Amino acid sequence: MTNDLMARRKRLFGPNVPTFYDKPLHLVRGEGVWLFDPDGRRYLDCYNNVAHVGHCHPKVVEAIARQAATLNTHTRYLHEGILAYGERLVGKFGHDLKQIIMTCTGSEANDLALRMAQAVTGKVGIIATDNTYHGNTTAVSQLNTRRPPIGGWPAHVKRVPAPDVLVPGSTDPAVFAGHVARAITELEASGHGFAGFMLCPVFANEGLPPVEPGFLDQTVEVVRKAGGLILCDEVQPGFGRLGSHWWGHDWLGFAPDVVSMGKPMGNGHPVAAVVARPDVMAAFREAFGYFNTFGGNPVSCAAAMAVLDVIEEEGLLAHAERVSAYALDKMRALRHPLIADVRGRGMFFGIELLRDGVPAPDAAARVVEGMRDRGVLIGRIGRQQHILKLRPPMPFGIDHADLALCALQEVLDEVAA
Amino acid sequence: MTNDLMARRKRLFGPNVPTFYDKPLHLVRGEGVWLFDPDGRRYLDCYNNVAHVGHCHPKVVEAIARQAATLNTHTRYLHEGILAYGERLVGKFGHDLKQIIMTCTGSEANDLALRMAQAVTGKVGIIATDNTYHGNTTAVSQLNTRRPPIGGWPAHVKRVPAPDVLVPGSTDPAVFAGHVARAITELEASGHGFAGFMLCPVFANEGLPPVEPGFLDQTVEVVRKAGGLILCDEVQPGFGRLGSHWWGHDWLGFAPDVVSMGKPMGNGHPVAAVVARPDVMAAFREAFGYFNTFGGNPVSCAAAMAVLDVIEEEGLLAHAERVSAYALDKMRALRHPLIADVRGRGMFFGIELLRDGVPAPDAAARVVEGMRDRGVLIGRIGRQQHILKLRPPMPFGIDHADLALCALQEVLDEVAA
Repeated sequence: MTNDLMARRKRLFGPNVPTFYDKPLHLVRGEGVWLFDPDGRRYLDCYNNVAHVGHCHPKVVEAIARQAATLNTHTRYLHEGILAYGERLVGKFGHDLKQIIMTCTGSEANDLALRMAQAVTGKVGIIATDNTYHGNTTAVSQLNTRRPPIGGWPAHVKRVPAPDVLVPGSTDPAVFAGHVARAITELEASGHGFAGFMLCPVFANEGLPPVEPGFLDQTVEVVRKAGGLILCDEVQPGFGRLGSHWWGHDWLGFAPDVVSMGKPMGNGHPVAAVVARPDVMAAFREAFGYFNTFGGNPVSCAAAMAVLDVIEEEGLLAHAERVSAYALDKMRALRHPLIADVRGRGMFFGIELLRDGVPAPDAAARVVEGMRDRGVLIGRIGRQQHILKLRPPMPFGIDHADLALCALQEVLDEVAA
Repeated sequence: MTNDLMARRKRLFGPNVPTFYDKPLHLVRGEGVWLFDPDGRRYLDCYNNVAHVGHCHPKVVEAIARQAATLNTHTRYLHEGILAYGERLVGKFGHDLKQIIMTCTGSEANDLALRMAQAVTGKVGIIATDNTYHGNTTAVSQLNTRRPPIGGWPAHVKRVPAPDVLVPGSTDPAVFAGHVARAITELEASGHGFAGFMLCPVFANEGLPPVEPGFLDQTVEVVRKAGGLILCDEVQPGFGRLGSHWWGHDWLGFAPDVVSMGKPMGNGHPVAAVVARPDVMAAFREAFGYFNTFGGNPVSCAAAMAVLDVIEEEGLLAHAERVSAYALDKMRALRHPLIADVRGRGMFFGIELLRDGVPAPDAAARVVEGMRDRGVLIGRIGRQQHILKLRPPMPFGIDHADLALCALQEVLDEVAA
């Protein structure tokens, strides 16, 4: 069956479209933190942040079904749904972030955020870290491409060294701010000018490095002094994943000019958004015509509203904080000579594997595969894919943590140092 | 109520976010070709092509509800849904167009199509018509922007005069091909080189000009000789809107290298796609890493599959062809001195209003508003927004055409020549 699906996939998608795992996983059903294959075997989902409030949460499913049967159209008409949702969402932000554009994907949201920085500054230069990912549109992928794009590397993008435990000094706030200041100088010298700095406030794709609240203060000062915008990509930390805060920037402690969000927003329904200050939004709306046919449609808003309901009704932030502390303790008790560091921010964990101080992606790969064989789904991050990544749906509980970490110890025991 | 919603909208969205109609329409329910306001007043929808098989079609709603309750995840796992859908969809194409990438919006699809042309040719230059719209990402909006973008007009985009009844000779195939040939020469001279020509095969946003099958033959020859790709945007004509054909390019009679589609694909659910030849897809997958979190998820595929089911089970192509012929006859019988031309391609109609040979956008605006007051929703297109646009959901029938065109004659009678 799997072989047949893989052959059809290859025929239909072409080359270089990888699946997760050496033995690809065929899924047919999801419920809460569990995913099921056609034989009824269950897998504990410690990877998927999109199914934020749990796979197929009945409240979200019901909201989608009800609204899809009632009305689904676009925002050139008036509809209560987008207004009620938007008002409730911006209510979760400070810093005068109170206007919104709804899109369908986080990539579309980040694509807009870049143009907001351009509109406010009249410049095009963008800074990002050198080990990040902000999305897949032409413009956004220029921030994270690893292959030289057709037509050459984009001259208006400067990349600064990401904070990384393996790079001495890189998690020092002043060092980081210095890199950003130099990048701004280069952009200004090149004639592109400096429009903004796009970042994930927990540096999720960078490997969740151990930075502390206040880390970005000096950088923010540098950016503001140069007239640029802080574009905060909350696609991963947003909607309470950190447990302690709704948004990553509130945890790290800085005021973004624009916030983009996506993946968890509709629990899998394609919905995303950009939130900005009124002055930023006005500059954008003055400079660019923008309309998104599906963005903010009543069904998307119903799905997103149900997600907020569930997060609050089920107390998922407090739950994440509690389970996170428990899971982190257990992770720190794991025994294996390759474990160099264990980090966590709410429902997002990284376990860094080093051999003689050098990343051990081979061991990380073996652990991920071993976990899959034991029915626990995890992934990898880090510049060399040597950090185990656990980023489960928010209802992930104490029992699930026990199960996952017991399996992890078993798998680690089989992996040579 | 409407005033309250407008005020909330302004507060939440900021400036320059227009609604349709002088008296914005507040909608709460949709069914088939009908939309309803909170007072239960019904509006005949002669505008929305997204609700392709009719608003809230029960088969599509049920497919969404069922799959949302079962599993919604991404394509790094194996799932039957995207394979079954993709195979069925590419089966509707000739020209060796048999591989697919699924996205969430037509904009994302066109953004990919541009990169496919770059990947195949190693060049970046793109040609489009000078009165088109292909979407809203940074890269795609460079093809249709009317305001100088921040950083200046994109030098790698050349725009050719759109075929237009008001421009003598512009609907002549040789004249059009000549424009494209000149644009290619300019792109090659500028050092950008020529990657591809993106077009809508019925030139929908250009005002549905009266071009005939074969119109593009010489242009295609010019493009191929220069090594460029034909990128066919089927977001509007696709999925049988023309009645006679599933796709606009099959009606116009040419072989695209890449086809993008969107709006009608999921009847409002955010789903879109790019279909390409295996050699084009391989070049793209070699040059660019691309993954779309929500693209091709099981719920999107279920919605899109149900749309194909309904189109076929209800015989909507034949229905569109029959109703289109009837409606066109009735449109041609409309009496008003400003009507200069009546055109139709299946369920897409344009009625061009001229005063002394000059576009009459004022009259067109008055007609659109008058129709709204009578409970019939239409829109406008054309370089000066002087062409009445009717583009109803596919189940639009003979009775609906009678109703709409009777109202249209009444409204026209009230509009001064």
